Amino acid sequence: MNFVVFVNGLILLFMAALMLLDAALFPATAGVFATSALITGMVGGALALVTYGAFTGLRRLQTFLLTTSIWLTAAIAGALPLYLWSMSPVDALFEATSGFTTTGSTVMTGLDDTPHGILMWRAMMQMMGGIGFIVVGIALLPILKVGGMQLFRTESSDKTDKELGNAARFAFGTLVVYAALMALCAMLYRIGGMSVFNAAAHAMTTVSTGGYSTSDSSFGQFDSAFLQWVAVVFMVMGALPFAWYLRVLLRHRLRSEQVMALLWTLAAVIACISLWLTLTTGTPVLDALRLVAFNVVSVITTTGYATTDYTLWGPFAVAAFFMLTFAGGCTGSTSGGVKSMRWIILLRAAHAEIRKIPLPNAVSTIRYEGRKVEDDVMSGVISYFTIFALTLACLAFALGLLGLDFQTALSGALTSLTNVGPGIGPVIGPAGSFAPLGDSAKLLLVAGMLLGRLEMLTVLVLLTPAFWREV
Amino acid sequence: MNFVVFVNGLILLFMAALMLLDAALFPATAGVFATSALITGMVGGALALVTYGAFTGLRRLQTFLLTTSIWLTAAIAGALPLYLWSMSPVDALFEATSGFTTTGSTVMTGLDDTPHGILMWRAMMQMMGGIGFIVVGIALLPILKVGGMQLFRTESSDKTDKELGNAARFAFGTLVVYAALMALCAMLYRIGGMSVFNAAAHAMTTVSTGGYSTSDSSFGQFDSAFLQWVAVVFMVMGALPFAWYLRVLLRHRLRSEQVMALLWTLAAVIACISLWLTLTTGTPVLDALRLVAFNVVSVITTTGYATTDYTLWGPFAVAAFFMLTFAGGCTGSTSGGVKSMRWIILLRAAHAEIRKIPLPNAVSTIRYEGRKVEDDVMSGVISYFTIFALTLACLAFALGLLGLDFQTALSGALTSLTNVGPGIGPVIGPAGSFAPLGDSAKLLLVAGMLLGRLEMLTVLVLLTPAFWREV
Repeated sequence: MNFVVFVNGLILLFMAALMLLDAALFPATAGVFATSALITGMVGGALALVTYGAFTGLRRLQTFLLTTSIWLTAAIAGALPLYLWSMSPVDALFEATSGFTTTGSTVMTGLDDTPHGILMWRAMMQMMGGIGFIVVGIALLPILKVGGMQLFRTESSDKTDKELGNAARFAFGTLVVYAALMALCAMLYRIGGMSVFNAAAHAMTTVSTGGYSTSDSSFGQFDSAFLQWVAVVFMVMGALPFAWYLRVLLRHRLRSEQVMALLWTLAAVIACISLWLTLTTGTPVLDALRLVAFNVVSVITTTGYATTDYTLWGPFAVAAFFMLTFAGGCTGSTSGGVKSMRWIILLRAAHAEIRKIPLPNAVSTIRYEGRKVEDDVMSGVISYFTIFALTLACLAFALGLLGLDFQTALSGALTSLTNVGPGIGPVIGPAGSFAPLGDSAKLLLVAGMLLGRLEMLTVLVLLTPAFWREV
Repeated sequence: MNFVVFVNGLILLFMAALMLLDAALFPATAGVFATSALITGMVGGALALVTYGAFTGLRRLQTFLLTTSIWLTAAIAGALPLYLWSMSPVDALFEATSGFTTTGSTVMTGLDDTPHGILMWRAMMQMMGGIGFIVVGIALLPILKVGGMQLFRTESSDKTDKELGNAARFAFGTLVVYAALMALCAMLYRIGGMSVFNAAAHAMTTVSTGGYSTSDSSFGQFDSAFLQWVAVVFMVMGALPFAWYLRVLLRHRLRSEQVMALLWTLAAVIACISLWLTLTTGTPVLDALRLVAFNVVSVITTTGYATTDYTLWGPFAVAAFFMLTFAGGCTGSTSGGVKSMRWIILLRAAHAEIRKIPLPNAVSTIRYEGRKVEDDVMSGVISYFTIFALTLACLAFALGLLGLDFQTALSGALTSLTNVGPGIGPVIGPAGSFAPLGDSAKLLLVAGMLLGRLEMLTVLVLLTPAFWREV
């Protein structure tokens, strides 16, 4: 258990360092961030010092505690400067959780007049959350020789990490790719005309598929086709498996079923909705293509930027974007949601079941990335869907009980669980914010974002008595 | 294939007989029903005569054709008198399909002024649909020595039919129970003050969990606590497995997991929502209990009557009734929807998966009704949920594309697939009707009702090329 505390301490120390950086860069909010850094650093240092050296490794079940506690700790510490600045405790926690889970839902309005130090902190939280998710998911836990967790079981069914050998080297490689993508993205944003500040902040929230922007009009503040297409490309890149980049770079092997599935899905959905938009509203084809590509990619990759209020395109667009919220990017990426690997396996299983009726004795093996899907992976995927659906229903139900209307309750629950960001409807839609909701609703959504990011089972297992007997 | 045509012919002949009965009872619409009976009887007689004796039994795959074609034939023939009376072809088909699938969605308004012959025909269609579903599902196909179909696989996992021996005897027993329940229900309705006509029509649509009423205010036209409680009891009885009645009557064995699960769920949901209604609106406890019990039972058993517009109770009630639409009654009953057996198995599988994390080597057997759930039943349940969710999404998406608003599209797709009847929202909610929808939307919902009643796989298998190669 000491090790869990120790890692949390390290994370607090790292966050304190970033807070100091923020304080140094933005004098207007230097006081807030210096104070936060002091508190965070002291707590983190104390935790790390007290537990340093006193641990003997991590038992299998403790990884669940580790993962859940990291995100909780980070969200609380991340909320500190926001609270010290001016926000209510619940709002600050909501905003920080939305940041670290790379959801991108916001309770803040008047972003255009918000101090740059605060806006940069929001972007930094998403940057940390994005890489944190990949590293914890793929690299840290194999280092610790632990497994068995839903998240990592599905990751490791990809087996790419093992191909690449040493997990520490792999974690380092991931970090390099992540930083390189962000740098490239920032550069292109700068070339396209963004200020240095905006280019940096948006590069962080694009590649992490986070979606925090620096204006109430989100990415719509940049009326530039070039910038929007750059964002499209880098949102997609953030949603591709980071192990795949390393494989392409080191082994020159491009082939990946989930990458192809994601790209084809995006192409098909964008083509259909653009066509529909052009035909129904007369928007010129290229404009429609850009509008649709940006917003569809934003939702499918679970980024959550918007360049326009697509819910005003009509009921079909509302239904379409609601459905797209279920999609998600690739496993092993910064993207949240259900993810294309699970959809591929589920659809293949359903197809195999239908085919079995006319040919009951035919042997059907479900394959993914060229390998047979083993029974435990299959049951992991199935239980993910089951628990996802039940969590979604409970959350929507609870939000309804708090008085939210049907659309807001259902799409709010969904967008928090899939870490997309905007919901649908007038309140929490792409043009709205989560500010008007009550504190109880916000706290439920905080729980939803954490459950979604940690793929539910990680958190739910902590609620079983058997876990605490065994841990 | 001849046998399929033959059975369809018999069903048309039976329907022609009922049309003649309707013509004899209600002079105002005698012409319409006599003409319909003539056409239906001639077509049915021709089909039956041409194929009589020329068949050599039914091959396994042809049962899928048989089942799907029966409902399609019945719906088309059932629409005939409605069309001859005054309705448009699409409206007539919608109304008849909604009748035979015991959904209960209606496109008719002004029911209070509609000729009794037409209203009785709607009730008769639901009566036929209800018993048809049980007999086809449990009795007919075992007689024909066929299996392998999702619907019958889940039914026969109950094994009750086999315990009761001979399938023909069992079909007869089911028919007797069905008729007895209807007679008892009609008697109690009459005692409670309904006219003979209303008692008969409502008994037919209560026990079949159909939900057609004889007034635009649905069951709300009867402002009698006694009548409403009678309806509650008989809706629940229609949603219990008919094999269970026979077992109770013949073997005096009451124990049934899915019956207990349904009753406990009903009790818990009714208690919660009644409490909430009393606390938030100050409705007296007994009134709240009756209001809630009636409408909750109506939705969970997939009947679809309403005594009030519960969507006006507030956003929580909307969310709650939307969720309840997913529930469904027991397998082997007249009820549609997902059904409690599938929910029990799914929840147990999810629970087993969470328990496996702390104790990865523990052997977990999922049991249902005291028996181990075999792998093929489990994969049948899983693929049911998958295909259900995908069909729901596609249907809602298509309705959205036709211009329906989000709530109407989603709840319309859901209520048609689960054969409940009313959706939520101002258009198709319990106080509305499906009349304002366009023809394309109505036809999509017709497809949804049929897919739902035939449990999807039955119909979808007809779309695979392998089926047509093998059949």
